[in-house]
Amino acid sequence: MAKLAQFKDFGKKIVCVGRNYREHAAELGNPVPSKPILFLKPTTAYISEGQAIKIPKGCTDLNHEVELGVVIGSRATNVQESEAMKYVGGYALGLDMTARDWQAEAKKNGHPWSLAKGFDTSCPISAFIEKDKIPNPENVDIWLKVNGETRQSGNTKDMIFSVAHLISYISQFFTLEPGDLLLTGTPAGVSKLKSGDIIQAGLGDVVNVQFTVQS
Amino acid sequence: MAKLAQFKDFGKKIVCVGRNYREHAAELGNPVPSKPILFLKPTTAYISEGQAIKIPKGCTDLNHEVELGVVIGSRATNVQESEAMKYVGGYALGLDMTARDWQAEAKKNGHPWSLAKGFDTSCPISAFIEKDKIPNPENVDIWLKVNGETRQSGNTKDMIFSVAHLISYISQFFTLEPGDLLLTGTPAGVSKLKSGDIIQAGLGDVVNVQFTVQS
Ligand SMILES: [Mg+2]
Ligand SMILES: [Mg+2]
Ligand SMILES: [Mg+2]
Repeated sequence: MAKLAQFKDFGKKIVCVGRNYREHAAELGNPVPSKPILFLKPTTAYISEGQAIKIPKGCTDLNHEVELGVVIGSRATNVQESEAMKYVGGYALGLDMTARDWQAEAKKNGHPWSLAKGFDTSCPISAFIEKDKIPNPENVDIWLKVNGETRQSGNTKDMIFSVAHLISYISQFFTLEPGDLLLTGTPAGVSKLKSGDIIQAGLGDVVNVQFTVQS
Repeated sequence: MAKLAQFKDFGKKIVCVGRNYREHAAELGNPVPSKPILFLKPTTAYISEGQAIKIPKGCTDLNHEVELGVVIGSRATNVQESEAMKYVGGYALGLDMTARDWQAEAKKNGHPWSLAKGFDTSCPISAFIEKDKIPNPENVDIWLKVNGETRQSGNTKDMIFSVAHLISYISQFFTLEPGDLLLTGTPAGVSKLKSGDIIQAGLGDVVNVQFTVQS
């Protein structure tokens, strides 16, 4: 698994799930989905600690979304839910940075979400977490603070679709490859950021990261 | 450039442009966009000649969209339109296969287009075309036949946004990397496919490809 720790450098896709926590769907006025809502970020969106989150030019409502990231360990096409966890190679904490104003415009016009979700620096990520450090991904505390104040505090047990269900579902449409990242949705508490804000986020006591927002 | 010819194997993203020909925007009842509409396909969508286009499970309206593909030759962030063509490493003919029923549902619900556009086999592609084989990408005939009957027959001069404009625009948001593919939109004539259909498509007399549709 030494190689998998470099997933950020060689992985080719980031598959994200929208509205996978009821309270987050509600806070944005969205219905609870009957099947996973999937979108993509390009891997050029990745940044690591020490690199800044840049507010993209023209965005006036940059939001944070803290998410459990699942790093795919082996090629997966049409996998059963009962087999799905075998394809997990490890984890990471990810932030699904969102230009909420651009996303709202896209939703209104029936346009793709790609710019709103995929701009450069829109996927800050922790270092790779070995699979055995998170024995049960269905029960992990997940939290995010802005300037020391808690904004998001949830637990992955409140996901609508489990990690295994997501892998199985996604693999019916998109073949998953080693190094791909799955971002599994965010709990409630998303909020608007401004230049200079400092984000801290973590998964229980397994990992924590810090990123600064810049205009 | 020997390496760039393998863009399908090492490139990490496919950036696609929606409604870049007026007549195609009109045929789907969409307004002509004031700025490029961008979406992403994952590279797991690629297939080459000899591999079949598979109608994804549950899709009842698979459409063909023949497009000029631009292979990025060097890393591009915030490039000026006047400099943009320097970042072109070559070309390819691409098909932006679209689950039109899924896309219509996504548009209606304000959902992302990713499944409708990114399922496995949704990006059939020709071999790499050296840059000097297409000295003027703004004037290339582009065509597609189904079972020998012409369905799409256009010219890239009818693009709303030029290749240079697209590269410049995209690079403001998404850093482009060597091996990335840009699909530049489709002319009018998209239509529904069924299992067994044979698609032939080409760019002038520079390249032509053939793919079979399977359920
Ligand atoms: Mg999308
Ligand atoms: Mg999210
Ligand atoms: Mg298209």
